[in-house]
Amino acid sequence: MKNCIGRELPDTIGTFDGNTPVRPFAGEFVLASSQTSRSRLRPPSGWVARPGDEKLLARLEDVFKRIPIRDGMTVSFHHHLRNGDGVVNAVLAQAAKLGLRQLKVALVSVFPVHAPMAQHIASGVVGALETNFITGPVAEAVSRGALKHPVILRTHGGRARAIECGELHIDVAFIAASAADTYGNITGRIGPNAFGSLGYAFPDAEQADWVVAVTDHVVGYPLAPISIPQHRVDFVVRLPTIGDASGILSGTTRLTQDPLRLALAETAAKVIEAAGLLHDGFSYQTGAGGTSLAVTQFVKRMMAARGVVGSFALGGITADIVAMLEQGLFRRVLDVQGFDLEAVRSIATNPNHIEIGSSFYANPFTKGCAVNKLDCVILGATEVDTKFNVNVVTGSDGILRGGSGGHSDAAAGAKLTIVVATTRRGTLPIIIDDVVTVTTPGESIDVVVTEAGVAVNPRRADLAGQLKRAGLMVKDITELRDSARAGLNPLPCKTSDRIVAIMEYRDGTVIDVVRQVEP
Amino acid sequence: MKNCIGRELPDTIGTFDGNTPVRPFAGEFVLASSQTSRSRLRPPSGWVARPGDEKLLARLEDVFKRIPIRDGMTVSFHHHLRNGDGVVNAVLAQAAKLGLRQLKVALVSVFPVHAPMAQHIASGVVGALETNFITGPVAEAVSRGALKHPVILRTHGGRARAIECGELHIDVAFIAASAADTYGNITGRIGPNAFGSLGYAFPDAEQADWVVAVTDHVVGYPLAPISIPQHRVDFVVRLPTIGDASGILSGTTRLTQDPLRLALAETAAKVIEAAGLLHDGFSYQTGAGGTSLAVTQFVKRMMAARGVVGSFALGGITADIVAMLEQGLFRRVLDVQGFDLEAVRSIATNPNHIEIGSSFYANPFTKGCAVNKLDCVILGATEVDTKFNVNVVTGSDGILRGGSGGHSDAAAGAKLTIVVATTRRGTLPIIIDDVVTVTTPGESIDVVVTEAGVAVNPRRADLAGQLKRAGLMVKDITELRDSARAGLNPLPCKTSDRIVAIMEYRDGTVIDVVRQVEP
Repeated sequence: MKNCIGRELPDTIGTFDGNTPVRPFAGEFVLASSQTSRSRLRPPSGWVARPGDEKLLARLEDVFKRIPIRDGMTVSFHHHLRNGDGVVNAVLAQAAKLGLRQLKVALVSVFPVHAPMAQHIASGVVGALETNFITGPVAEAVSRGALKHPVILRTHGGRARAIECGELHIDVAFIAASAADTYGNITGRIGPNAFGSLGYAFPDAEQADWVVAVTDHVVGYPLAPISIPQHRVDFVVRLPTIGDASGILSGTTRLTQDPLRLALAETAAKVIEAAGLLHDGFSYQTGAGGTSLAVTQFVKRMMAARGVVGSFALGGITADIVAMLEQGLFRRVLDVQGFDLEAVRSIATNPNHIEIGSSFYANPFTKGCAVNKLDCVILGATEVDTKFNVNVVTGSDGILRGGSGGHSDAAAGAKLTIVVATTRRGTLPIIIDDVVTVTTPGESIDVVVTEAGVAVNPRRADLAGQLKRAGLMVKDITELRDSARAGLNPLPCKTSDRIVAIMEYRDGTVIDVVRQVEP
Repeated sequence: MKNCIGRELPDTIGTFDGNTPVRPFAGEFVLASSQTSRSRLRPPSGWVARPGDEKLLARLEDVFKRIPIRDGMTVSFHHHLRNGDGVVNAVLAQAAKLGLRQLKVALVSVFPVHAPMAQHIASGVVGALETNFITGPVAEAVSRGALKHPVILRTHGGRARAIECGELHIDVAFIAASAADTYGNITGRIGPNAFGSLGYAFPDAEQADWVVAVTDHVVGYPLAPISIPQHRVDFVVRLPTIGDASGILSGTTRLTQDPLRLALAETAAKVIEAAGLLHDGFSYQTGAGGTSLAVTQFVKRMMAARGVVGSFALGGITADIVAMLEQGLFRRVLDVQGFDLEAVRSIATNPNHIEIGSSFYANPFTKGCAVNKLDCVILGATEVDTKFNVNVVTGSDGILRGGSGGHSDAAAGAKLTIVVATTRRGTLPIIIDDVVTVTTPGESIDVVVTEAGVAVNPRRADLAGQLKRAGLMVKDITELRDSARAGLNPLPCKTSDRIVAIMEYRDGTVIDVVRQVEP
């Protein structure tokens, strides 16, 4: 046999792996589709860029036609622009215009700004939803049965796992980027709508069949810094705007001013101290709740007073954490998501403020995610039950208004997991016998801090002793339940048998289901 | 059905993807092996790190036993320490000590420092070799038939492709790191033996079943900067030394002082100018040959004189390229490998000096590799034939002493591919009728620059006109061949029928084979 340049070749060659047929060279760009990268995962239609090929497309419509996007496909999105996101609405409006039906939307978090999706569900353009957090009009609609099939709710680490092992197969990932070059290198760190870390889009970029960068800021090749590289990105499309980055600071990311909550925060900080964790190398994460953010203020003061240098702060990053990095109270920040514009400024300029993907952050089935290295995480709760199970996904009325995000991930990984909550919210008891929906299992929760006392999980008898010796008001969780319900008689949440959402634990098992509320 | 926390669950749930069996939650760390990341690729034995698990192992022997490494497995290595590498020898010595047999070694480049591998081949510890470049005692040995099966020679982009699509399956990647933290974040950018970019190890880290970081510099968690992240790395092992980073500057990376070669370099630079490429946005790569490096000096002067700002320099990076970045002659450097310690210093400190992996660099079957964006590449040649085919893998005597590296990749990608060579080396003609081994096909080569004139590939008639108008001495390649062989009568290279190496083109086809030389 001769190849195309006339070299004599045998038909087969005996190699270490056996007698192997020889594929003769056929020209520099002749062979293509049978051996694309990740060919075991990508369909043979996978496009391969040759010299001279262009990736910049002028309109979203061009993307839909070029791929082409068909009925029933799965389209994914990150949520780094939070309630300022403009990309999901733009893409779904285009899908509706083209008459597409029954798309599955895999959006990391659903915010009020995504209200138009409720119409797309009603009209059948959107047929399924998988998300880690859901609030606003779309949450209301699906709680009331708008979707034929249940929403799949995951944790942040669980979503990365589901994508990487193929459970959540993405046809087309639309990745909002605050800057992109013409060949598909993208970032969230610079540009007029810079939003910081792009970490939640990393699994999508690595595993989706098609990856489309959506940006309002195209720069010359090559971009620096690069968060997701060109060889993972098929097309770049420019929109007039990707949204409004000031919408990042929304909902749960405001610091509390409530004196009661500040007192709770101070108690939580004392729990960390009493547990003996405030020494050099301390690592720390907070959720996005206002009380959690207040805990950070107290932790900061304690660290500064004791001269403690922490190893890292993790998770959604705020101005307080940035200040602690800059003051030398933490050596590094591992940032999977920016919660305010200070976090955005810092990640763009400080080499010790490190962008990480969601698999690095919290995927339980890797060679080691960052939550495993946490000393302490501070989390919120919508409800806590006497088994220490936590609900952060439905209100006490059974309506979806939240989700795990990284709640279950950090809780499972940290040495000390503290839930901070008041025993009541208005006339609703928060510490109860059974939460409406379990998001995070009780085995992950070590301490519940309330204004009526601090409950320690019976699994952590060691810890109860430490807290008592530190003078903290340790109580049995049933005592907290009793003071929560004293004088109240809340109506039980009425649900039908129909399942509107499946709450997946981070490992892909089902920890609970959400049933449709009665009208 | 109830899950382990007593929540009522149906056995199956109708979802968008059909009627799906419910996997009940069983506890935070109960489920593990069936859904590891990339579970389609990883064996079920794949280890998953839970909180508290340690990755730091004291001795190489512990790694071999923990995995465990068995006869016939494939072990991979990068070559960033070049002729200063100490990791390959240490790992193979350990394998020999443990009595392992028939390992396949997938080492990016084989240097003289790897001489002990020749003994491991003779003794049967090493049974197969796959590499992109090979020189020194191991090359001599395999050229003379030391291995039962042929060596598989690839290009840098082709190796990334082969790993990513599963053709080259790696059981255990040993990745030399100049710094690592205790949880497996690694880099080549800092530490006593800092060697710069870790780019050639990226596909190994992403696709190998097991990834072992080998370092002589362990730092506190978490490391910054991170080149390969913790969730890809199973274990970290500390050796007294990973080698000697000063060995990076070795072999082909010294600038020529030969006046003839300097004249060739100047001509090559004039070809770039005449081709009309020296304008803002110019992109450029050189090989590691001394003459190629000299071309850079002339290109630098021309760019400075014309006030041209290039977009990027690519490839193996040298002090000259760093100087051009710092002087503003290039906006960015895309670095897959450092060729000297200036490159190491720069990548550690300059945000416009960007670390890229080998797939980003040159994998032809991705959504766009960097060689596709090259305006010009300068390459060397051991032989060039009248079809413009280039040999950089065997000497004229048929002995292996080189390899493609990125030669074929950059040649296929660049708008203008220039080969610079003297017509003779000593009494050996270099421009000949047929090269001993084809590494890069003639269709990729645009211009051959020699001291006897400049030959332009007939496919580029446009270019021939441009060069003539610029006053360059354009000749037919057969005229160069004639002046090369005038008065010489070299003996033809005598080979047997036995194939000792398969030269794979970047797309995985076979462009040529290397046959055993007669004794």
